[in-house]
Amino acid sequence: MYERKIPKKLDCGIAVIMEVIGGKWKSCLIYNINSGLRRPGELQKQNPDASRRVLNQQLKELEEHKIVRRVIYAELPPRVEYFLTEFGESLLPVVRSMEKWGDENKELVIDLLE
Amino acid sequence: MYERKIPKKLDCGIAVIMEVIGGKWKSCLIYNINSGLRRPGELQKQNPDASRRVLNQQLKELEEHKIVRRVIYAELPPRVEYFLTEFGESLLPVVRSMEKWGDENKELVIDLLE
Repeated sequence: MYERKIPKKLDCGIAVIMEVIGGKWKSCLIYNINSGLRRPGELQKQNPDASRRVLNQQLKELEEHKIVRRVIYAELPPRVEYFLTEFGESLLPVVRSMEKWGDENKELVIDLLE
Repeated sequence: MYERKIPKKLDCGIAVIMEVIGGKWKSCLIYNINSGLRRPGELQKQNPDASRRVLNQQLKELEEHKIVRRVIYAELPPRVEYFLTEFGESLLPVVRSMEKWGDENKELVIDLLE
């Protein structure tokens, strides 16, 4: 089970959601899985900056937080796919608003990072 | 100036916004500053789980990304206050949707963390 110490201060809604989507790639993974990218290899290809270890760790945490569910197909070689749970789908309005802001401000942010 | 390597893949809007609000406390800081908590001491009190060093680092990054501006009053002892910039205010719809989701799902998330 997820062994992290529960942060004392969860009365702020943002601290609560950051517990769930706080990892760097979690929002991207939720967005990608919702747009049909289900397999670890596809998710890695979509997020080349992330190491496979970090992606697997963050997928594991999303699974433990009941945001995604993992389906293993009894095939050779075994096939794994991720799906959003109903709870995970409740995050889509937030994730979409993040995507929209990022899209609208991409040039500005890239300039700021230089 | 902010020396971080620019991640290669910024074509996904979420990767862009995570560059700006990706730090664990940044969304909380934006929310707190917008609700009138301006001084480092007030922000620390509101986020007791965060060390002063981490808060100062994330405030510095928010300032470098033009999300907040810092005002130093020529008094003894000197007084410092943070304000959202117009660019920072453009994040408020996203931050509010995060706060709302967190508020609505607080009990569920706390159960999941146990």
